[in-house]
Amino acid sequence: MINVGIIGIGRIGRVHGESITKYVKNARVKAVADPFLNEDGKAWASSLGITETYTDYKKILADKDIEAVLICASTDQHSPISIEALAAGKHVFCEKPIDHDVEKIKTVQAAVKASGKKYQVGFNRRFDHNFEALQKAVAAGKIGKQQIIKITSRDPEPPPIDYVKISGGIFLDMTIHDFDMVRYLSGAEVEEVYAAGSVTVDPAIGTAGDVDTAIITLKLDNGATAVIDNCRQACYGYDQRAEVFGSNGALAIGNDTTSSAVFSGKDGVVSEKPLFFFLERYMQAYAAEINAFVEAIVQDIPTKVNVQDGLEPVLIGLAAKKSVAEHRPVTLAEIRSLYNL
Amino acid sequence: MINVGIIGIGRIGRVHGESITKYVKNARVKAVADPFLNEDGKAWASSLGITETYTDYKKILADKDIEAVLICASTDQHSPISIEALAAGKHVFCEKPIDHDVEKIKTVQAAVKASGKKYQVGFNRRFDHNFEALQKAVAAGKIGKQQIIKITSRDPEPPPIDYVKISGGIFLDMTIHDFDMVRYLSGAEVEEVYAAGSVTVDPAIGTAGDVDTAIITLKLDNGATAVIDNCRQACYGYDQRAEVFGSNGALAIGNDTTSSAVFSGKDGVVSEKPLFFFLERYMQAYAAEINAFVEAIVQDIPTKVNVQDGLEPVLIGLAAKKSVAEHRPVTLAEIRSLYNL
Amino acid sequence: MINVGIIGIGRIGRVHGESITKYVKNARVKAVADPFLNEDGKAWASSLGITETYTDYKKILADKDIEAVLICASTDQHSPISIEALAAGKHVFCEKPIDHDVEKIKTVQAAVKASGKKYQVGFNRRFDHNFEALQKAVAAGKIGKQQIIKITSRDPEPPPIDYVKISGGIFLDMTIHDFDMVRYLSGAEVEEVYAAGSVTVDPAIGTAGDVDTAIITLKLDNGATAVIDNCRQACYGYDQRAEVFGSNGALAIGNDTTSSAVFSGKDGVVSEKPLFFFLERYMQAYAAEINAFVEAIVQDIPTKVNVQDGLEPVLIGLAAKKSVAEHRPVTLAEIRSLYNL
Amino acid sequence: MINVGIIGIGRIGRVHGESITKYVKNARVKAVADPFLNEDGKAWASSLGITETYTDYKKILADKDIEAVLICASTDQHSPISIEALAAGKHVFCEKPIDHDVEKIKTVQAAVKASGKKYQVGFNRRFDHNFEALQKAVAAGKIGKQQIIKITSRDPEPPPIDYVKISGGIFLDMTIHDFDMVRYLSGAEVEEVYAAGSVTVDPAIGTAGDVDTAIITLKLDNGATAVIDNCRQACYGYDQRAEVFGSNGALAIGNDTTSSAVFSGKDGVVSEKPLFFFLERYMQAYAAEINAFVEAIVQDIPTKVNVQDGLEPVLIGLAAKKSVAEHRPVTLAEIRSLYNL
Repeated sequence: MINVGIIGIGRIGRVHGESITKYVKNARVKAVADPFLNEDGKAWASSLGITETYTDYKKILADKDIEAVLICASTDQHSPISIEALAAGKHVFCEKPIDHDVEKIKTVQAAVKASGKKYQVGFNRRFDHNFEALQKAVAAGKIGKQQIIKITSRDPEPPPIDYVKISGGIFLDMTIHDFDMVRYLSGAEVEEVYAAGSVTVDPAIGTAGDVDTAIITLKLDNGATAVIDNCRQACYGYDQRAEVFGSNGALAIGNDTTSSAVFSGKDGVVSEKPLFFFLERYMQAYAAEINAFVEAIVQDIPTKVNVQDGLEPVLIGLAAKKSVAEHRPVTLAEIRSLYNL
Repeated sequence: MINVGIIGIGRIGRVHGESITKYVKNARVKAVADPFLNEDGKAWASSLGITETYTDYKKILADKDIEAVLICASTDQHSPISIEALAAGKHVFCEKPIDHDVEKIKTVQAAVKASGKKYQVGFNRRFDHNFEALQKAVAAGKIGKQQIIKITSRDPEPPPIDYVKISGGIFLDMTIHDFDMVRYLSGAEVEEVYAAGSVTVDPAIGTAGDVDTAIITLKLDNGATAVIDNCRQACYGYDQRAEVFGSNGALAIGNDTTSSAVFSGKDGVVSEKPLFFFLERYMQAYAAEINAFVEAIVQDIPTKVNVQDGLEPVLIGLAAKKSVAEHRPVTLAEIRSLYNL
Repeated sequence: MINVGIIGIGRIGRVHGESITKYVKNARVKAVADPFLNEDGKAWASSLGITETYTDYKKILADKDIEAVLICASTDQHSPISIEALAAGKHVFCEKPIDHDVEKIKTVQAAVKASGKKYQVGFNRRFDHNFEALQKAVAAGKIGKQQIIKITSRDPEPPPIDYVKISGGIFLDMTIHDFDMVRYLSGAEVEEVYAAGSVTVDPAIGTAGDVDTAIITLKLDNGATAVIDNCRQACYGYDQRAEVFGSNGALAIGNDTTSSAVFSGKDGVVSEKPLFFFLERYMQAYAAEINAFVEAIVQDIPTKVNVQDGLEPVLIGLAAKKSVAEHRPVTLAEIRSLYNL
Repeated sequence: MINVGIIGIGRIGRVHGESITKYVKNARVKAVADPFLNEDGKAWASSLGITETYTDYKKILADKDIEAVLICASTDQHSPISIEALAAGKHVFCEKPIDHDVEKIKTVQAAVKASGKKYQVGFNRRFDHNFEALQKAVAAGKIGKQQIIKITSRDPEPPPIDYVKISGGIFLDMTIHDFDMVRYLSGAEVEEVYAAGSVTVDPAIGTAGDVDTAIITLKLDNGATAVIDNCRQACYGYDQRAEVFGSNGALAIGNDTTSSAVFSGKDGVVSEKPLFFFLERYMQAYAAEINAFVEAIVQDIPTKVNVQDGLEPVLIGLAAKKSVAEHRPVTLAEIRSLYNL
């Protein structure tokens, strides 16, 4: 039984707290910390039987009985707390992205290596039943030689414009999950990126220097080509589909719904919309990723999403950003050379 | 090239006329006859290049160049014209049902035997791409030993009440196609029928002594059980589905639509309604059945729906009627004994 | 926080124990009892933090801190323990069926009434996301006036023949869930039953006096007709579908799968089989039913599946049994009169 | 009734000949011509009742009773025969592409303008029931403001390598249909193209200087972005899908199959593969396009696919070719300027 501390109890921190309490056999939440801890947060912790609540996460780091921490603080805190926690001898689960700054990720990577501790990045989709089924089949050779990978990822609604401004842009904030999926599904690395971006949802997003709609083409080192289509808004909900096409066939995954009900009426044959957004769609994946993290500690095996897996999508995102800015395909080699990688 | 005459150019007679002209290689319509032939009928014939139009079908029977006739007259004319046409040396395609009266069907059967001519009954569904795919797979052993056969057959709207009154009742008018499908799909004979009927669409149908909704359970001589659900009205259109379940799996067929378009919007994920009614749904089947009839003549092979195939569903329909009337399961043996069959 | 005791920790008892521990906020398992309690059972209890384990369920009934019990013992124990538990002042959740003997169910019903305690029967499908979505839509008037209700319920494999012999027969053992679904989905009562049974799976089931395949037609007091098709074996897994058809349309629910993956290959377009059996298919429903039971206690509201709901499907099952035996439709009134109901 | 002559009776010429005979009310084939006319060709013509068969198409052009010609000769003959036929006063239906050489298309365009005759290019997909349903819904505003258009177009098998060599390359030979679909579905013009090509099917195609797999991103003048994925080989058949996503939802079309049969067996739930290739998939579209051409003549209305519609996809194809060659996005303006357009 692993004692865990959660740093940051905003939306995602609470998701993990509940997951651990309900679904993760070999862990329990011993303490939570949040600089904005209030009565509501304490009540939430209490409802899960968590009695230690702090404003200062350093109290968690100082607790010798806590073996692992979940870093669910704001993105700018991810890398410094990661390094501090590793130094304090904790295993670390860190929400994505580790950072937008490659140098900071490299520092975390060095710290992980030096510490010998487990480090997992919060790319939850790798633990989703649909994406996992797709990945396993591809890895098992079901579709033969990979030729085309397609990912559709559309959010039901854009984030607040204030968030957009600090988000690092659509490629580092939203597409980063899809970049991770390209690597996960293909088992290959991205060599080149071409991104076409546009503003079709909200002009304010354009004014903020970002795009809200994008088609990104990626050349992989296994000879396949991937294409991602993104939009910050889909009126029918969270659209999360993928297809891998190869010499032996195509394997596609679709959206999940609340039920399988289909209504045949005078206006057509109507089935349900996709589950609304990531909390609905990926709730089980959130539990599964934490469970996998805990098992990596318990069984002393590598985590399924390591620092390198956290770094690569950021590099791809930076390539996509540069591609839009300079209106040309950009190689990953070019991005890596900027950071001596 | 077979010369064909069409007797009766109402809705279904015209469907066949157009089918032959467009799709049937080895036949042409030489003449049509209809007691109510008018300018519209002549114009229709002319548009297909048919120049011989009569009010009296006997002129068709007298034409030595006509080898085959299609009987598309009213039901009460089916058996007498069949016998006359066979006597005149014509091959006969007769719309379903041959008659509601078993004795008359027996007389036709004797006439066919005596004549040595081809005789095909208009059970068009046997020529539908979906039902045919299902039948072929079952016959090929795809589902193993048959256990349960399910047929859903719902009309988009009930016929006029005046038609209901002379229709012979839902079982002889509507379900008769489904009875034929049970025989066609299973390759087996019905041994016993239990029918539960109700009036849920229009009380006037009840007043006319009929039901508009029914669940019919049929025991087959191959050990399988079939169940048919019927309704005279489905607001979403013509619902024509079937499933055969057996030891190696279940094979199901669904409805056809105008296109595969699926709309994902704020109210759900919407695909198209089934094609509206039999003319839309079975247009290709109508052409295929006539083509098969012509090929039976040309190649001198048995027709795919013979008089026996026309008789059996009538017997099953009579059993169903008796089952509702006497509120008990009725065997086919009981019905057959009434007619010395 | 309600303290719960579980009586019987076979397969279903353990399902409930885990559900309560993981998903039910307002309850905890304080003790379990099982006459065959062994090391494995103790280890299981311990893994959930349950320290009180007994061979004698009376110890649970004697514990003043336990407010509610779950009766997961063998069927013959359901009614006596129900009565004892109610007498001991416990709320009772009882697995289905309460008993096969109507008189015993009546005794339980009287005991519930006298006790003023909550009593819920384990008809888990009422808490399944698909059936619940269907029921809610029907109740909300989505399909208009009900006309036809269809339920397909096929098991992946038959139970051991020794179980078949004591099961009460397919109608009381397997179809009983479907009878409950007919009542649940329609909100109506069954008036008449006609059942056609056959042995298509295993002759030994026939030798044991039972059938393994059945089509059951039910007339409801709201004018609709329901039809259930059952089979003890479907090679593709647990087939759990339903459709309610009415004046405004049809609403259908299908099977659940592990993932939405669809493979297009040279042999066709292949999606996943249904989830294997009830434990896979209804795991969430088991948790939801216990949660609803606990909430009924906490909020002092009626349970969602009361003794009457436990009784009616047994009466329908007895009618079905009689229908097969006597080869005729059987009214519920006839069955009720046998028991002075 | 329009008299039509067919120039070239290879595969597609025969498809049109049969379509006209069977499905096109207001036209008949009076003559066919083919430089390689042989007994087989004559027998084919005869089976359709076509008695005038020539090796020299000029005999068709000289026939005053022929009002329209279908040019189904090899691609290099499309533009010269078009010009000759227009000069001879014929309406022209020309198979796609008019030519790979923009200058030649311009000459045809001038000739059409000068002649006042109807000219239709053989982009058959515009007449397919699925694509047409999608286009109509988009044009009617069903999906709101267009944001992303996706087209999947994969052939079941690559053409012979000798054909690949003279095909003009994948973009002018295969993707040209998809470029037309982008224009058709969006009602907008393409402004910029980025194409990523690869050889994943057959190295010989690479050796021939072509690619067999491609992802093409297109920026449209209505603000939407389109993406096409192509492959010369899909083991499961002809994959023809499209989706238009906009502010009010997404509308998608899928593949057609021979039947709706779905088999549930121990290996999964299997539906049919897409129809094999274009002849199977688009047979009805071929008839519909010729019918539309004839109606354009009869009713003296513009054809639905004019020379400009034939020119634009060639320009887009040239842009795509240049994009791959120069590894950069290419604007249509750049291509147009090369041809003074």
